[in-house]
Amino acid sequence: MATSNTDTSNARKKEVKKETRLGLTYKKDKDFGEWYSEVCVAGEMIEYYDISGCYILRPWTMAIWETLQAFFDAEIKKMNVKNVYFPLFVTENVLQKEKDHIEGFAPEVAWVTKSGQSEMEIPIAIRPTSETVMYPYYSKWIRGHRDLPLKLNQWCNVVRWEFSHPTPFIRSREFLWQEGHTAFATQDEADQEVLEILELYRRIYEEFLAIPVIKGKKSELEKFAGGFYTTSVEAFIPNTGRGIQGATSHCLGQNFAKMFEINFENEKGEKAMVWQNSWAYSTRTIGVMVMVHGDDKGLVLPPKVASVQVIVIPVPYKDADTQAIFDACRSTVDTLCKAGFRAEVDLRDNYSPGWKYSHWEMKGVPLRIEIGPKDLANKQVRVVCRDNGAKMDIPMHSLVEQVKEILSNIQESLFNAAKQKREACVKVINTWDEFIAALNNKKLILAPWCDEEDVEKDVKARTKGEHGAAKTLCTPFDQPRLPEGTLCFASGKPAKKWTYWGRSY
Amino acid sequence: MATSNTDTSNARKKEVKKETRLGLTYKKDKDFGEWYSEVCVAGEMIEYYDISGCYILRPWTMAIWETLQAFFDAEIKKMNVKNVYFPLFVTENVLQKEKDHIEGFAPEVAWVTKSGQSEMEIPIAIRPTSETVMYPYYSKWIRGHRDLPLKLNQWCNVVRWEFSHPTPFIRSREFLWQEGHTAFATQDEADQEVLEILELYRRIYEEFLAIPVIKGKKSELEKFAGGFYTTSVEAFIPNTGRGIQGATSHCLGQNFAKMFEINFENEKGEKAMVWQNSWAYSTRTIGVMVMVHGDDKGLVLPPKVASVQVIVIPVPYKDADTQAIFDACRSTVDTLCKAGFRAEVDLRDNYSPGWKYSHWEMKGVPLRIEIGPKDLANKQVRVVCRDNGAKMDIPMHSLVEQVKEILSNIQESLFNAAKQKREACVKVINTWDEFIAALNNKKLILAPWCDEEDVEKDVKARTKGEHGAAKTLCTPFDQPRLPEGTLCFASGKPAKKWTYWGRSY
Repeated sequence: MATSNTDTSNARKKEVKKETRLGLTYKKDKDFGEWYSEVCVAGEMIEYYDISGCYILRPWTMAIWETLQAFFDAEIKKMNVKNVYFPLFVTENVLQKEKDHIEGFAPEVAWVTKSGQSEMEIPIAIRPTSETVMYPYYSKWIRGHRDLPLKLNQWCNVVRWEFSHPTPFIRSREFLWQEGHTAFATQDEADQEVLEILELYRRIYEEFLAIPVIKGKKSELEKFAGGFYTTSVEAFIPNTGRGIQGATSHCLGQNFAKMFEINFENEKGEKAMVWQNSWAYSTRTIGVMVMVHGDDKGLVLPPKVASVQVIVIPVPYKDADTQAIFDACRSTVDTLCKAGFRAEVDLRDNYSPGWKYSHWEMKGVPLRIEIGPKDLANKQVRVVCRDNGAKMDIPMHSLVEQVKEILSNIQESLFNAAKQKREACVKVINTWDEFIAALNNKKLILAPWCDEEDVEKDVKARTKGEHGAAKTLCTPFDQPRLPEGTLCFASGKPAKKWTYWGRSY
Repeated sequence: MATSNTDTSNARKKEVKKETRLGLTYKKDKDFGEWYSEVCVAGEMIEYYDISGCYILRPWTMAIWETLQAFFDAEIKKMNVKNVYFPLFVTENVLQKEKDHIEGFAPEVAWVTKSGQSEMEIPIAIRPTSETVMYPYYSKWIRGHRDLPLKLNQWCNVVRWEFSHPTPFIRSREFLWQEGHTAFATQDEADQEVLEILELYRRIYEEFLAIPVIKGKKSELEKFAGGFYTTSVEAFIPNTGRGIQGATSHCLGQNFAKMFEINFENEKGEKAMVWQNSWAYSTRTIGVMVMVHGDDKGLVLPPKVASVQVIVIPVPYKDADTQAIFDACRSTVDTLCKAGFRAEVDLRDNYSPGWKYSHWEMKGVPLRIEIGPKDLANKQVRVVCRDNGAKMDIPMHSLVEQVKEILSNIQESLFNAAKQKREACVKVINTWDEFIAALNNKKLILAPWCDEEDVEKDVKARTKGEHGAAKTLCTPFDQPRLPEGTLCFASGKPAKKWTYWGRSY
């Protein structure tokens, strides 16, 4: 049932442990699922909530979300997208207007049936996404070609009452996202915007979260319910050998326009139907970041999104001038903050330096600065990188420029390391046997495919098992050469394209 | 029932009219309620939605909301408040933990009882506010005095399924707000923060929305359900003679701490209970702005929050050089935007200048710039102020400095005009007869009061009628002198303080 508490009690157990000593119980390579839950909680990103599948996003998470939001919001405003806010609720009648769409979402819809003590006459749905909430009004607002393009976006919560295994960030019953909904006079304009938005999603993953993604098109089976075609950025989690859909930019074509009668008079005075897109990314982005970069010491945050980029820790010794060390720590933080870095000092007197090292490593702060008597004497600080443990002494006079360079290097090397790991998982195959072998080896499989829906269904059916079925992840825009006569790995028919396959989240 | 459509069809009728000619059907002074609904829709702030009491916040609204949000969010971050996101849902069990609190909210709670086709075992409530959602976790996170203060805030939607007359922004079943929830070791710290936040709310109203507000304390009857004391900023709508609670900053005392067991070990090693505050402002702020400043031509937006501060309109004549006029308009907008103003040009060729004047007046843009052949020849522009219709010719070379001054004057004079109107409504009374006369005259009544809960209940009962009962709005912090021997206007007992009374939203 909805309120089963297995996640919670699990998390509670860990929480108690955390208070007695620092460090993770689980290893990333050995018990990935348990490690992930533990690091989300111990790194103070998430708190488990007493309704299963709902999570508390703690300040450490929200700061990252706000950074991504500030970037994306500014970019879409440049594209002249305007923010709106549509209601959380939608009537059954409207929700069901696009048949394929509702079939895709119906099993997950949460229904409000009661207010106070009164039963409602008609149950009201909580939005799982807002196509059907918004488009009746698009029909009203759009009359002539001068009303186009109409480009709206909202930042909001949505609810999908899923029953499969809930996972913080990755699969939760309520999550935060942005959803863009745009309407154009022509398909060309719609097509172009789909890719512009997809590029912003790539930048969120690659430039901010330091996670390599593959841009491509979803198969017919995997595309958005009711849409025309779906593009996505796909990430990969080497530890589990699973792909993960990072964000999607859909061209809805004219399907919704037909159902919701979104027509306009074009420049020639003729009645025409709009072309629509919708596109979204969610707090799932943050879960992918935790999965990709985290290690057995805890979170590893890319400097660009970390709410604390540098943590300064005093290392006083028995006979040392503690006050002078504390002062040096404070002035180091001041210098860094003034230079635009997000730096903090941990002056708590009830924890040892060693405990603090572990604590901030758990929280994934990219760079630690230690200041002890020797550093003070030598007018230097000791810096330690979270990602690879590298240590360096930096003269105080070049603090700002060196910290800048180190943080920039960390950002880059996180991305490179993640890319290298992912590349090592890619397996190009040609036959069914190779496919199965690669699947069992947790590979990201690139295979020649005939692009037939029934064949994908067949692959799904044949690979069903305790780890879940294999499916297409995407057909990458960046296509390797497909030699003439290449056959589909699954059907033996002529292959039309290279497509990524694998298990997925 | 929930989905009755009277609001919507009403709004639809107006929408059709709007397309044939501009201008409002209703007058602010004559039919205030109808005028308000009409101006919200025609000014493109709101669209009525097909679920009664839910409204679509259009881009014109969201831009204002984002400006207020940017201000407040930056200010509370300076106070070291961190943003979080707690779930939308809460179990019945937790919701009911604080008895007075739940009594205040129970009739308005929306319940989710079904997901997909399945009945849930336990119905789940949608947050009407998040005290009970959050505080079980405060109990978990707060252990020692070093965990205090804990200062969290979230930007989110909440749902209160009210059945009284829904009104855009002012009384809606879902609305956007921020809710801050803080915990302190001492009452002193809590008391101090209550006022710091209240001052930010005053600034939102007075500095941004140009609306005068009164800071004060709510009566026992009107305070937050389950709280210790409530402070608020109160605005007043002269047309209806109603007070309107602008935002509230509550000290919760230790009531919730007791129920949710939020204890900590203090510096002496003793067990103690935290002191808590909660504080919120919502999209209601924007409704108050519409009510206070709007006129019979439409919205009037204060420059500080208007998403378009200056609209530039070309005024071509038959024989004039249209291209040169258009170019001058574009370069005027460029100059203003580069100087940091939010300026736009309306170059649409299918509307006359006169239509455009009315259109942008309806949308409340503070300043209009007209450029015609004569202006071009004289190297000047014609500016027209939205608030008072004042017209001026400005030489192009002093454009930026003069626009800056004019916008600043508009901001100030909107506030002064609103303050003057409000002051004209204040009526100081001493007796019950004066009270009733003032109430019938739609006054904001300042009366000496004995501060007894039963007396307020009695006043409510005695003034019940079609316009709603009178109640206390607040006891202003700024107290006039209370001469010894002054008696309560309602009970005849010795008065303890001056308190504002009136009908309210």
